[in-house]
Amino acid sequence: MKRKKIRIIHYGLGPIGMETARLAQTKSNLKTVGAVDISPDLVGKDLGTILGLGRRLGVVVTDNPQRLFGEVEADVVLHTAGSRIQKIFDQLVEIIEAGINIISSSEELLFPLKENARLAARLHNLAVENKVTVLGTGVNPGFVMDALPVFLTAVCQDVRTVTVRRVVDATTRRYPLQKKIGAGMDPRDFHEQIARHELGHVGLRESLYLVAGRLGMELDDVMETIEPVLADKPVKSSYFSLTPGEVAGIKHIVKGNRQGERVITLELYMYLGAEDPHDAVCICGTPNINLRIEGGVAGDQATAAVLVNSIAAVMAAPPGLTTVTEITPPHYFR
Amino acid sequence: MKRKKIRIIHYGLGPIGMETARLAQTKSNLKTVGAVDISPDLVGKDLGTILGLGRRLGVVVTDNPQRLFGEVEADVVLHTAGSRIQKIFDQLVEIIEAGINIISSSEELLFPLKENARLAARLHNLAVENKVTVLGTGVNPGFVMDALPVFLTAVCQDVRTVTVRRVVDATTRRYPLQKKIGAGMDPRDFHEQIARHELGHVGLRESLYLVAGRLGMELDDVMETIEPVLADKPVKSSYFSLTPGEVAGIKHIVKGNRQGERVITLELYMYLGAEDPHDAVCICGTPNINLRIEGGVAGDQATAAVLVNSIAAVMAAPPGLTTVTEITPPHYFR
Repeated sequence: MKRKKIRIIHYGLGPIGMETARLAQTKSNLKTVGAVDISPDLVGKDLGTILGLGRRLGVVVTDNPQRLFGEVEADVVLHTAGSRIQKIFDQLVEIIEAGINIISSSEELLFPLKENARLAARLHNLAVENKVTVLGTGVNPGFVMDALPVFLTAVCQDVRTVTVRRVVDATTRRYPLQKKIGAGMDPRDFHEQIARHELGHVGLRESLYLVAGRLGMELDDVMETIEPVLADKPVKSSYFSLTPGEVAGIKHIVKGNRQGERVITLELYMYLGAEDPHDAVCICGTPNINLRIEGGVAGDQATAAVLVNSIAAVMAAPPGLTTVTEITPPHYFR
Repeated sequence: MKRKKIRIIHYGLGPIGMETARLAQTKSNLKTVGAVDISPDLVGKDLGTILGLGRRLGVVVTDNPQRLFGEVEADVVLHTAGSRIQKIFDQLVEIIEAGINIISSSEELLFPLKENARLAARLHNLAVENKVTVLGTGVNPGFVMDALPVFLTAVCQDVRTVTVRRVVDATTRRYPLQKKIGAGMDPRDFHEQIARHELGHVGLRESLYLVAGRLGMELDDVMETIEPVLADKPVKSSYFSLTPGEVAGIKHIVKGNRQGERVITLELYMYLGAEDPHDAVCICGTPNINLRIEGGVAGDQATAAVLVNSIAAVMAAPPGLTTVTEITPPHYFR
């Protein structure tokens, strides 16, 4: 008996979407049946051509998802079209109403907070009604600073504090990421744009609350700081040439207190020229866990991998909006 | 509304069982309703007294589980009464037929192989019939050398090889563990007892096949070596005083090949006086993952933690014999 292939739609063809679409073509149990993007450069072209596969896939990029959902049957949408739930809400509703599961790289969708929680509740109800599962995931948020530390606590009798530090050398990352960390900016402009939420990493608070929630640590107080890291010597990436004093990237920290004690600290350093990139998780408990990933988990490749590797778990999960810590953990498959 | 407590039976009160029972008393959502052991020193005594809690729990240790299952209702048995499926098979059958879920520290139950696979199939069918879930877990096997590396591959587009090395300084571990690694023996006796399966770590092959199975790496060839590590200077633990030349512990290695290529290597060093204890996982893939846990995950405390932390996941899992990589990952809870 031939196993039926899982039918995928790629929604959003920025760098992460392209990487995800490319990876999906290597999996024998997946079949791409659609691709969505709004860029006039891509609409109407065959996905195989855009990915540089040297062959057509018979999948033409459309900017009309509604029509696509009417024409093809699909099991999962891999959604890489935005970070902010407010901006992608209508897209997600349309996909859910078409009866298709969603795996999204939206950072806010990892664990929707505050005003997003209201939108998320609507998505959840709609997903249950339409019997589909919706997951927000990625590497950060989605793995290094939330799913991984929660996973590690399986071996702990007691957890007093969780500290995660991620240091990323942004020179190796995609252009949008280098831009969103403020590379090349004047420090004053950086602060203004941070204040207007036009810059910076999205998802660190979401990771904090996800970890706290799963470990039963109700937080009374959360502090967040976002500071520029300034270049102290000339730094070059494929996209930027920094002179000393210009912004090289960000230092973004969130801390959660419970009953006056610091229980969770998440520190994200992401800048051009960061030395000694790594991910470190320190769980102070019984026993202590002191983990380090040398070089860190490489962002863009890994994000595409998580999205594709989550397909089986999402299809098996109960309907509704779920989280990375509630599903069977994704893993590599051939 | 008051949440109903989960009712637990502790089955086996060796060092791990005692640690598990002690931990369970600290969890507000758990209630111990029974305790089983065959030791005449324990039978008839109150579990609270045995655990040194300074209070009675109203739970008297029995050597008659059949009668206990008739007298109390329970949700989960935490089973710490043996490594070998053959030896515990009848115990497990009795528990399953009483309609109670099982979380066992049996190393072979992690992923039953060869002759155990036949027994496991019977357990699985019986569990499905009785609508209970059965899980074999622990720290090793169950976490460091299997669940953790599989979990890490979530961020991998491709996995070529998986290498795990665990170095344990056995001086810090329980007496039965120091004994089973051959501490204090003459090297000749060590080899004889290894050949008769009277010594050594159980579960490394199980970890290997579990990892291979989950990653879709069918193995054509598996090599296993078990060698003594000899003391090169005097070493002391609470239980043994070694002179140079005596066995300090084991070096146990399994390797799996696929199409002539080494794809998985698991190396376990467990001996008195081991320097630089740590756990290391190296995934050669896209991207590479190079992880190290300084000091390693401390065995006995951690095993008790995994057993207790797995309760919610096992109760939520579909009926049958499951594995640590198929359930929602356990995590610490208050």
